[in-house]
Amino acid sequence: MAGLEHALEVIKRGTDEILLEEGLIEKLKTNRPLIIKAGFDPTAPDLHLGHTVLINKLRQFQDLGHKVHFLIGDFTGMIGDPTGKNVTRKPLTEEQVQENAKTYKEQVFKILDESKTTVVFNSQWMTKMSAADLIKLASKQTVARMLERDDFNKRYTSGQPIAIHEFLYPLIQGYDSVMMEADIELGGTDQKFNLLMGRELQKGNEQTPQVVITMPILEGLDGVQKMSKSLNNYIGVADKPDDMFGKIMSISDELMWRYFELLSFRPMHEIEQFKSDINNGTNPRDIKFLLAKEIISRFHDANSAEKAQQNFIDRFKKGKIPENIDEYELKSSDGSLGIAYIIKDSGMTTGTSEAIRMIKQGAVKIDGEKVIDTKLMLAKGTTAVYQVGKRKFAKVSIV
Amino acid sequence: MAGLEHALEVIKRGTDEILLEEGLIEKLKTNRPLIIKAGFDPTAPDLHLGHTVLINKLRQFQDLGHKVHFLIGDFTGMIGDPTGKNVTRKPLTEEQVQENAKTYKEQVFKILDESKTTVVFNSQWMTKMSAADLIKLASKQTVARMLERDDFNKRYTSGQPIAIHEFLYPLIQGYDSVMMEADIELGGTDQKFNLLMGRELQKGNEQTPQVVITMPILEGLDGVQKMSKSLNNYIGVADKPDDMFGKIMSISDELMWRYFELLSFRPMHEIEQFKSDINNGTNPRDIKFLLAKEIISRFHDANSAEKAQQNFIDRFKKGKIPENIDEYELKSSDGSLGIAYIIKDSGMTTGTSEAIRMIKQGAVKIDGEKVIDTKLMLAKGTTAVYQVGKRKFAKVSIV
Repeated sequence: MAGLEHALEVIKRGTDEILLEEGLIEKLKTNRPLIIKAGFDPTAPDLHLGHTVLINKLRQFQDLGHKVHFLIGDFTGMIGDPTGKNVTRKPLTEEQVQENAKTYKEQVFKILDESKTTVVFNSQWMTKMSAADLIKLASKQTVARMLERDDFNKRYTSGQPIAIHEFLYPLIQGYDSVMMEADIELGGTDQKFNLLMGRELQKGNEQTPQVVITMPILEGLDGVQKMSKSLNNYIGVADKPDDMFGKIMSISDELMWRYFELLSFRPMHEIEQFKSDINNGTNPRDIKFLLAKEIISRFHDANSAEKAQQNFIDRFKKGKIPENIDEYELKSSDGSLGIAYIIKDSGMTTGTSEAIRMIKQGAVKIDGEKVIDTKLMLAKGTTAVYQVGKRKFAKVSIV
Repeated sequence: MAGLEHALEVIKRGTDEILLEEGLIEKLKTNRPLIIKAGFDPTAPDLHLGHTVLINKLRQFQDLGHKVHFLIGDFTGMIGDPTGKNVTRKPLTEEQVQENAKTYKEQVFKILDESKTTVVFNSQWMTKMSAADLIKLASKQTVARMLERDDFNKRYTSGQPIAIHEFLYPLIQGYDSVMMEADIELGGTDQKFNLLMGRELQKGNEQTPQVVITMPILEGLDGVQKMSKSLNNYIGVADKPDDMFGKIMSISDELMWRYFELLSFRPMHEIEQFKSDINNGTNPRDIKFLLAKEIISRFHDANSAEKAQQNFIDRFKKGKIPENIDEYELKSSDGSLGIAYIIKDSGMTTGTSEAIRMIKQGAVKIDGEKVIDTKLMLAKGTTAVYQVGKRKFAKVSIV
């Protein structure tokens, strides 16, 4: 069955774990459109590429003929933080949930096929659930099993409080799978415990247990830490085309292959071809252009992607930045380095006082932008092209 | 304030712990009728004197002018054992709950003042509770705090499973106190953790926390183990007058004082007087008669109590059982002893074959009843008067 082999290849691409693969094969063999579940928090609809790793996988399932049930976990969001300790987690109103859902849809339908997507809210069944039903649900799992979960275990053994309702949330996530009759649930690797809960509860409800597929956490632009807003190493799906282009061009060649695997829809054999093209002399920059254009086309359009590439090239030309410039890694002991030191240490001035004078004259640029502040601090993890006067260039990474 | 001192003396009698006494004094000083809460399981309305220790305390509160809210915890009873492991704990129907409540009332109104008692069912508020509300309730306590509870701790550390819903039950018991606006909650010493939960939840709901009063567990007829059906060392409140009389007369003098404190409504100074009467030569049997008659009057009537005493005396006279007979303790290695050995070892026959012959002749009695079976086995814990022929008597305890 060639269809099955193809499906398996597409599904397995980039995944972290599939539990269990036999179950997946069984389900694929039924030849019916499977229900693919993925749950999302109702609070933060401002997605970055890290979030899209999972959404891309959902799209791949749609392309194989399956149906995505995009679950917005609004029920717990409407409870907020019942301990009252986390003031930022105020209960959401029905209107806020609907508002956030709208933003979600705007963002995810740039990836998902709307005709094969059903957006569901777990408030639909959870607000109808009685305390008695929740007690019955809670009876399905033991305290010891919950304390096996990595984060609970760490908190318990280190004496940090775990409120009892936190034990109920994984059960509710599992119960959602029962109500949705999910065939497959996708989640991040950190969600594995909760995803498996769905399997157990479905078994208890005489359903064929869902297959659990975990997706890896995407590294940010630094290639080391996970992509996140707070680390400022992210590409937002709402970023402007020029910003997306610049950020993608700034990643290392190694990270580029990771992004190709997890973010591109090009088949893997094409990507393998790119690798051998580079080995045969193709400029990696040109391959990175392809990635950047694919991503920008997805979240904006093909025109904007072409324009962003042209802008990027023009900026280099205008700034007369040579194509091959010296690269430096400068160590920061306390998380950042001052602009004057960077210029001096990359050999573009003889000292910091000369560097400061050049900045005051308006002769220093970072990625083509004039520097005004002589005390500008550049954070660890930043990689940029520095220019002093017309001819001195250096690409500096602060490590 | 003499009234307060008197109230405190009555309340403190026989109690195990009062948390906190200052709170109790504060509440008594308000001079309003306090709401005294006590919760009962809806499944087993067949009470014995061990259960009445607590009910007696409720009666004492009523005599001081307070109101008893007798809570039947039918909500959890109607859930049954959600793990499905305990087949004997099937969910109760509404009808069964009402039936059991009727039996409860028949039994407890022999002690309680009906005009100062309100019977409440926690299903009244718990069936209306939503899963969301239960989650909020569960957020009020931590896992670590629950695992401090003695039985949970033992089970957790010994690897026995604790289902998560078991953590919810103490919270529901505490929530009942909030809904009932309880001023004081009574319970056994084993209930202390759950009773304190009520205090915490009331504080969180801006109520003055209830005072917790724990009552000791009553020893059974053996004076050692707690009174219980399964140990067959109990006096049921529905026992016949003659049975009650005989059982009370069988207890040790030491246990008699314990029963006076916890089961009698005589003021303590009268009981102290009885002690000095015995020191001055009164037969302890006559004091025990008073206890037996008080208990029987309570659960039957004064007439039946008098008759039971007469029957008891007659039985001894008819059987010509002397008042002072030899007492023996015989050791059983495997849980019981045969009748022939008992007769021989207490010196009433020279051997077991003589003993068997005497039984066959109908010359052996236990507590006045003729023995027919020569192979009769008497269980460990049994104390009875054995008679061989007309003149040989021995009181034998099998230990």
